[in-house]
Amino acid sequence: MVKACVMVAPEKPVQMWEVAEPAIEQGAVVLRTVYSEVCGTDVHLWHGRLAGVPYPIIPGHVSVGRVEATGGEVKDADGQVLEQGDLVTFLDVHENCYSCWFCQVAHASTRCSKRRVYGITYSAQEGLLGGWSEKIYLKPGVKIIKFPATLTAETFISGGCGLPTAFHAVERATIHMGDTVVVQGTGPVGLCACVFARLSGALNVIAIGAPAVRLGMAKRMGADCVIGIEDTTPAQRAQAVRDMTGGRGADVVIEATGVPQALAEGTDMVRDAGIYAIAGQYTDAGNVTLNPHRAINKKHLDIRGVWGTDFSHLYRAILMLNKHRDAFPWTDMISRFYGLDEAGQALEDVETGRVVKAVIKPGA
Amino acid sequence: MVKACVMVAPEKPVQMWEVAEPAIEQGAVVLRTVYSEVCGTDVHLWHGRLAGVPYPIIPGHVSVGRVEATGGEVKDADGQVLEQGDLVTFLDVHENCYSCWFCQVAHASTRCSKRRVYGITYSAQEGLLGGWSEKIYLKPGVKIIKFPATLTAETFISGGCGLPTAFHAVERATIHMGDTVVVQGTGPVGLCACVFARLSGALNVIAIGAPAVRLGMAKRMGADCVIGIEDTTPAQRAQAVRDMTGGRGADVVIEATGVPQALAEGTDMVRDAGIYAIAGQYTDAGNVTLNPHRAINKKHLDIRGVWGTDFSHLYRAILMLNKHRDAFPWTDMISRFYGLDEAGQALEDVETGRVVKAVIKPGA
Amino acid sequence: MVKACVMVAPEKPVQMWEVAEPAIEQGAVVLRTVYSEVCGTDVHLWHGRLAGVPYPIIPGHVSVGRVEATGGEVKDADGQVLEQGDLVTFLDVHENCYSCWFCQVAHASTRCSKRRVYGITYSAQEGLLGGWSEKIYLKPGVKIIKFPATLTAETFISGGCGLPTAFHAVERATIHMGDTVVVQGTGPVGLCACVFARLSGALNVIAIGAPAVRLGMAKRMGADCVIGIEDTTPAQRAQAVRDMTGGRGADVVIEATGVPQALAEGTDMVRDAGIYAIAGQYTDAGNVTLNPHRAINKKHLDIRGVWGTDFSHLYRAILMLNKHRDAFPWTDMISRFYGLDEAGQALEDVETGRVVKAVIKPGA
Amino acid sequence: MVKACVMVAPEKPVQMWEVAEPAIEQGAVVLRTVYSEVCGTDVHLWHGRLAGVPYPIIPGHVSVGRVEATGGEVKDADGQVLEQGDLVTFLDVHENCYSCWFCQVAHASTRCSKRRVYGITYSAQEGLLGGWSEKIYLKPGVKIIKFPATLTAETFISGGCGLPTAFHAVERATIHMGDTVVVQGTGPVGLCACVFARLSGALNVIAIGAPAVRLGMAKRMGADCVIGIEDTTPAQRAQAVRDMTGGRGADVVIEATGVPQALAEGTDMVRDAGIYAIAGQYTDAGNVTLNPHRAINKKHLDIRGVWGTDFSHLYRAILMLNKHRDAFPWTDMISRFYGLDEAGQALEDVETGRVVKAVIKPGA
Repeated sequence: MVKACVMVAPEKPVQMWEVAEPAIEQGAVVLRTVYSEVCGTDVHLWHGRLAGVPYPIIPGHVSVGRVEATGGEVKDADGQVLEQGDLVTFLDVHENCYSCWFCQVAHASTRCSKRRVYGITYSAQEGLLGGWSEKIYLKPGVKIIKFPATLTAETFISGGCGLPTAFHAVERATIHMGDTVVVQGTGPVGLCACVFARLSGALNVIAIGAPAVRLGMAKRMGADCVIGIEDTTPAQRAQAVRDMTGGRGADVVIEATGVPQALAEGTDMVRDAGIYAIAGQYTDAGNVTLNPHRAINKKHLDIRGVWGTDFSHLYRAILMLNKHRDAFPWTDMISRFYGLDEAGQALEDVETGRVVKAVIKPGA
Repeated sequence: MVKACVMVAPEKPVQMWEVAEPAIEQGAVVLRTVYSEVCGTDVHLWHGRLAGVPYPIIPGHVSVGRVEATGGEVKDADGQVLEQGDLVTFLDVHENCYSCWFCQVAHASTRCSKRRVYGITYSAQEGLLGGWSEKIYLKPGVKIIKFPATLTAETFISGGCGLPTAFHAVERATIHMGDTVVVQGTGPVGLCACVFARLSGALNVIAIGAPAVRLGMAKRMGADCVIGIEDTTPAQRAQAVRDMTGGRGADVVIEATGVPQALAEGTDMVRDAGIYAIAGQYTDAGNVTLNPHRAINKKHLDIRGVWGTDFSHLYRAILMLNKHRDAFPWTDMISRFYGLDEAGQALEDVETGRVVKAVIKPGA
Repeated sequence: MVKACVMVAPEKPVQMWEVAEPAIEQGAVVLRTVYSEVCGTDVHLWHGRLAGVPYPIIPGHVSVGRVEATGGEVKDADGQVLEQGDLVTFLDVHENCYSCWFCQVAHASTRCSKRRVYGITYSAQEGLLGGWSEKIYLKPGVKIIKFPATLTAETFISGGCGLPTAFHAVERATIHMGDTVVVQGTGPVGLCACVFARLSGALNVIAIGAPAVRLGMAKRMGADCVIGIEDTTPAQRAQAVRDMTGGRGADVVIEATGVPQALAEGTDMVRDAGIYAIAGQYTDAGNVTLNPHRAINKKHLDIRGVWGTDFSHLYRAILMLNKHRDAFPWTDMISRFYGLDEAGQALEDVETGRVVKAVIKPGA
Repeated sequence: MVKACVMVAPEKPVQMWEVAEPAIEQGAVVLRTVYSEVCGTDVHLWHGRLAGVPYPIIPGHVSVGRVEATGGEVKDADGQVLEQGDLVTFLDVHENCYSCWFCQVAHASTRCSKRRVYGITYSAQEGLLGGWSEKIYLKPGVKIIKFPATLTAETFISGGCGLPTAFHAVERATIHMGDTVVVQGTGPVGLCACVFARLSGALNVIAIGAPAVRLGMAKRMGADCVIGIEDTTPAQRAQAVRDMTGGRGADVVIEATGVPQALAEGTDMVRDAGIYAIAGQYTDAGNVTLNPHRAINKKHLDIRGVWGTDFSHLYRAILMLNKHRDAFPWTDMISRFYGLDEAGQALEDVETGRVVKAVIKPGA
């Protein structure tokens, strides 16, 4: 039997379940979980803020594990045959249909309605399809990445789902060398965005967030300077950004907060003809009041929504993570490791912001 | 002496002035005005809704005239030497500095703070720098286009300032062949956007506006179908668009209304991973309430503000206008010609929407 | 039994075979072929100029047919359930893996090495996987398009494989409204490129080719003017283009000839900072001598190779074809219909250029 | 009197001239030259390989100096008023007309035919318009950048004209995070391209060149590995690149050699659907034989010519240079300082490749 932590319904305590060992299909892979994580989305899941979630679920969308068994020969994206003991991760999004209008005509793969997501839209009744479990069942066709020898499980899970999410946001933001980039938010996505903004040519990275411990972390993760939100007004923050940019505002602003008001504040601090990438509004947290003349039209602004991730984001994020594994204190983002039976505590800690990154260690 | 119609101050009746003949500098051109126009911006000017306007002004930013005199040899953008009697128009925006950060580093020429605009930001005390006048003084460096022999002044002034504005909006919207395009607004900008959307590859163009006369005109200017706003709700209109697009929404929505609420409605009718270009919020008409999760983030939407125009938009718009001069009933957009002394009436008619295009004919 | 015309080996006469009726899998579709075509690629196949072709093959990559049977419920890309008698076409390229580095990381789907192409890289031993046959077997997952009621099989097959190929080339060429576009080549790809260039905003389309009958056809398919290659030198043609463009050269040149020398000629007639899209070099026809300083570097030129097509090109091409079905004399491109047993004659006719479009009509 | 080194005619020894102090116009600036440089272009000038050069000229297009006098108040691009003693550089390209078709319609500013270049297309008879001189006369309108306090003249001149040229090439190459980038050529442009490729997100940078001293420098300037051309064949080098990229080839190749054959070699080592940016073919060094099917069409390749630079490239390059001034051994690129009277020797040293960067120090 396999132990898994299950979110049985919104607002209910998570439970420890014993689940039968999976029978392995041709092309599938069973992982022994090394780490999974608790992120803001898991808190949303716990409060029932996402539509269409098939509770009970095993949460944990981004995880890292070791190959325990494969259904025949299975290869990773680079064509490497997977062997028992290999350290791997995988794209949580699965079952893109590659047939629908969004997949085939719009090439907007993150909008395919057939997508299922490990740890979010798979039910616990369908199998070990989430990371808060001793084992994870990778269905045939799940996109797998074997870690390079130099990359540890700890380094990867430090960024966790923040890695591909921030990578996608930075890609959409099309940073040019010499740009000043503001990152709104200093959670894992925001911190990873600071790193990727820096690595893709930003001259100055300004992180805006709270509390002090996260701001301090931001400085070590590529931010040149930080602005705390606890002791400033939105107008003061926008003015601070303008003061650092010759009065113009930032070339690029990346939103990673989840707070609707961030949109109004962010469009105030971006320069005319700049770019504003919105990645953090993952759930419906309400409305914002905006002046379209001042915020968009007169600014000649580009606003770019960022939904989901595809395999290229995870793949490239890992390449960059491995290359720059020693250049940033990745693992210092991990505030605490939690056993499977401590996942409820981890949810509470993430919700209060007491921790930057809460990591689930099923083998603990 | 030259007769000109002057907007002396916000909310005051316009006045007829007699102005001295201009002394012509080297590189300058004096035009005998054939037509100018009254557009929504002129109504805004009349009500004092634009900041920094140096009243009294001679309105009329887009005009067409015949060369009366030149200060030495003056050439148009194609290098043609201008001769007396040539029919020409010119870019209303002048004095881009080509030196500032926006001009030189950001290549965002419409955000250069040195820009002055004929008919808007030049004072009547500075000369004949607006089209509601028998003559227009083109300062050295004003960008001029000599009309091809096949293009009449009437055809051009039918579109007027709507031509480069709509051209820019359509360019920003990056329409792909096969796209369904919604145009919000059926004033001159919206009607020109219908044409340019059609000419740049739209499969279906849906125009949304009022009143019936404008909707009828939209059908003749490239719209495949129209939706009236007087007898529908925003939700009904969004649903109508989805019904015409397999439930997905339009690939591209172009806003040309000036009404803040159009932003909320437009993001509701654009498809996921689509494009929303905002061209109509030329003045501050207030706020709109928006849900950033549903309207932007989850949609993976691109929102693109469109501010001002540069010479390429006017130049290319005229090329296309001339090519397709017989394919659309351009001059039917002109509701009425007004003499200079009827400009006040024209302002009222434009404001009420009684007319599609009000043309000033100084020689009338 | 099903009659099919088989290319048994390079340089051998094609043969009529009788093939067993296919057993239909779940998700598959059997079509009764209405039309297929003979294009330049088929001539290349006949002469063995493509690598890796598994002779014997049933040629005919782009075809149109009526649904005879389906393996259970099968839907087209718009989600419409296919019924017996429906008129459909399909993307000849099949079995994109959606797993490899090119599919998943580079998003370069036309470079997936797993791709198989109906009529080209499927062997006759694998089934009815080509259009020169009374029936075509569409394997599960083949991307199908049901024709709108207004679109006839004749109109579609007139363009045939030239439709998606030219669509892709024009998409890569990113034409802006007002551009002058040269199309090198007046075969089906070139003629379709004239139409799509026109529909996507070209001001002037200049077609270059031979013989006179094709040049005449080009004029009716969207070209504003034509230049014959039989009585001009490359230098004269480049000069003619410059003469039509104020001495600058064309904004965009699209190559659809298959002749290596076209590259040198085309870069000579494109303007500085223009775009050169190469679609016609489908097989290795030899080398060309180029001066990289003059042809590329000093011109600040963009050269864009165009390989293969994906489903979006076929899908959007058909939308545009149907919309503009009456605006161009599509079916006049068809020079002659051939029965299956006349396919050898068709190959000869295409090779000599005696025909513009040779259509196979298996039911004839 | 001002001492200047003059290139009087092709293939003649350079001469020392004494030139009258310039009378300063309103808006002009006189610099006391701190450093200028000798680059490959100067060798081309010396051999008469550029068309339209108005010999005699004062070479030296990229230079750094201290403000000696200004004609009234003169500002730099950030709006800072220039004061005596300020350390500045300037864009060598001047007199973009901002009026012609290329400036106004194509927005292809580096193709404006009115452009004049300090040290190249200004004659010595027109004044002190080149850097091999004790003083440089900056005409009104020359775009000036005041150095930040942290940036030294030595650091800047180490890169010299290679900085904006490489910046432009890397910008055109649109590197994505995770890309493998090959830089062909290890002169100053190639070395700067290694740095900018690294800074804009390259995962791996592979420099190809000679001799050993330059290859060693490349490793210190951002290249992960180097391939020498003196002991390898083109086929071996292409294979080496494929071996480092899973058999695919590099995502991006940037050419900075000036050797036509580099085009054939580079297209062989770039991956399918990759990008090839050509920056080094600054003069006509002959032809190359290319197979358009294999090198462009089948590869679905993007080839991008890179001509000249505009102000944004210099401005942003300096921002990045200053930020990363300690991260790379910039000044180690300087092989030797030469007095004005040693410029002839410097030309010879650059031509033989004995030096990486030859710096002119007029005050020496």
